[in-house]
Amino acid sequence: MSEVKPLLEGVRRDVEAALDGVLPPVAGDPTRLHEAMRYSALDGGKRVRPALCLLAAEALGGARARALPAACAVELIHVYSLVHDDLPAMDDDDLRRGRPTSHKAFGEATAILVGDGLQALAFEALARAYGDDPALGLDLVRLLAEAAGAGGMVGGQALDMSGQRLPREEAALEGLHRMKTGALLRASVLLGARTAGARPGDARWTALDAYARAVGLCFQVMDDVLDCTASTEALGKTAGKDAEQDKLTYVALLGLDGARAKAERLLSEAVDALADLGPPAEPLRALARFIVARSS
Amino acid sequence: MSEVKPLLEGVRRDVEAALDGVLPPVAGDPTRLHEAMRYSALDGGKRVRPALCLLAAEALGGARARALPAACAVELIHVYSLVHDDLPAMDDDDLRRGRPTSHKAFGEATAILVGDGLQALAFEALARAYGDDPALGLDLVRLLAEAAGAGGMVGGQALDMSGQRLPREEAALEGLHRMKTGALLRASVLLGARTAGARPGDARWTALDAYARAVGLCFQVMDDVLDCTASTEALGKTAGKDAEQDKLTYVALLGLDGARAKAERLLSEAVDALADLGPPAEPLRALARFIVARSS
Repeated sequence: MSEVKPLLEGVRRDVEAALDGVLPPVAGDPTRLHEAMRYSALDGGKRVRPALCLLAAEALGGARARALPAACAVELIHVYSLVHDDLPAMDDDDLRRGRPTSHKAFGEATAILVGDGLQALAFEALARAYGDDPALGLDLVRLLAEAAGAGGMVGGQALDMSGQRLPREEAALEGLHRMKTGALLRASVLLGARTAGARPGDARWTALDAYARAVGLCFQVMDDVLDCTASTEALGKTAGKDAEQDKLTYVALLGLDGARAKAERLLSEAVDALADLGPPAEPLRALARFIVARSS
Repeated sequence: MSEVKPLLEGVRRDVEAALDGVLPPVAGDPTRLHEAMRYSALDGGKRVRPALCLLAAEALGGARARALPAACAVELIHVYSLVHDDLPAMDDDDLRRGRPTSHKAFGEATAILVGDGLQALAFEALARAYGDDPALGLDLVRLLAEAAGAGGMVGGQALDMSGQRLPREEAALEGLHRMKTGALLRASVLLGARTAGARPGDARWTALDAYARAVGLCFQVMDDVLDCTASTEALGKTAGKDAEQDKLTYVALLGLDGARAKAERLLSEAVDALADLGPPAEPLRALARFIVARSS
């Protein structure tokens, strides 16, 4: 664990500074919207997606500075989805990253607009940052939009809202999570890889894609485990909601030990997928281990 | 008026077919989300923004087929904004284009996701359609994202939600509308122009930009007039809401006649801006006249 902490700390610092530069200034009009966008996007979160993006680029010899706008774009999509998921009509949550959720702090209308504005900003940031290489920029837009939309994250969230009707079997649960959280986690890795010059079909792309799929699912399995075992304080969001809502989770399906064993298997898969990438991929391996060992 | 009707009918047909191809199929999972996205995006609306986009491209000698994906992307952003604006936490409206609003028909959670999914789809559609000319594609993404985000439509909507605090003067109202509706109407024209090869700084770009700004404001002035004078049935959305909510509008500021006179002045400005573009710009002129003369 100790090896990954300074790594994540460095990512957090870089991403925080980059997001600060991309987000609209507090001073500008409409002030309240800008303030709310910054409230939700800054000073919080583990920044797992930006870390995946930056470390994937670096695993292929790419420069962090080149991947940073892509990492920010992915995080902006993630943050917007949290803001909307927390709304009363959705998961109705009061607490996020240890602070009041956006609609609790700024009201529902502003929270809806915060999410909408952050999504547009993600694509604007890509278009601005990669104007010197439009083929790269447009590929990033496409990868991110596909992962964020009805065929990915938004579709998964829609499936989840109708979750009671999912068949209680692992394939259904996995299908849901491949969309709801997996698509954006996978995109994080692939956007990073693309900024380092990889393309679909490359051996390196295929290796990172396999890593990303395993890590994405692993992340969700551990989320289910933590919802059962961690405190609200440690999570920074309301714990125990899954059981309370009788949601289909990996813990409900496999039991706590079964879910932990599955996470370990997925971790091995993720690490194995990187075998040919050698030492530059070591941070990605450490990040996968961190995801399984994390306590919040 | 008669000249513009077949023109708009042709645009509607082309846009409807193109949107049908871009939207996710009803059959796919999650069915309900797909159905709701199609419900909101198809079979409705005047398609003013796609018309501006296609006719701007054609005014410069561009091909309609080349501009069509951009026209769809603009309309998807417009439709998503309507779905979110109608939500109970926002304008709380039950009726849109003569039918129940998305949240009335599908529930609030689905309506939030419909908007989110349509926004992602707009950018995905651009990235897919313009892969053969990434410099064009990335320019379109940037123009659209800037117009849609906190510096444009979303920012204007946020200003409008805090509308009671606007100073009761024309400059404040104009600033609001330049963001809330003007930015996307302007983008509609500029995206079309860009697909026809125009670029910022070109005389043709500058002419179309001046046209777009005048038409955008004109459109809003007439919206305010119609909210006072038209029936809910004719509008397909709830009429008389502005006065009821004591909103700052052009009618409140200038009176009904004053607002109509302003619309006429803006129409002249728009038509004058196109002077150098000659006969190919005639449909754009007709469209501007239609916007002032429309009754819904």
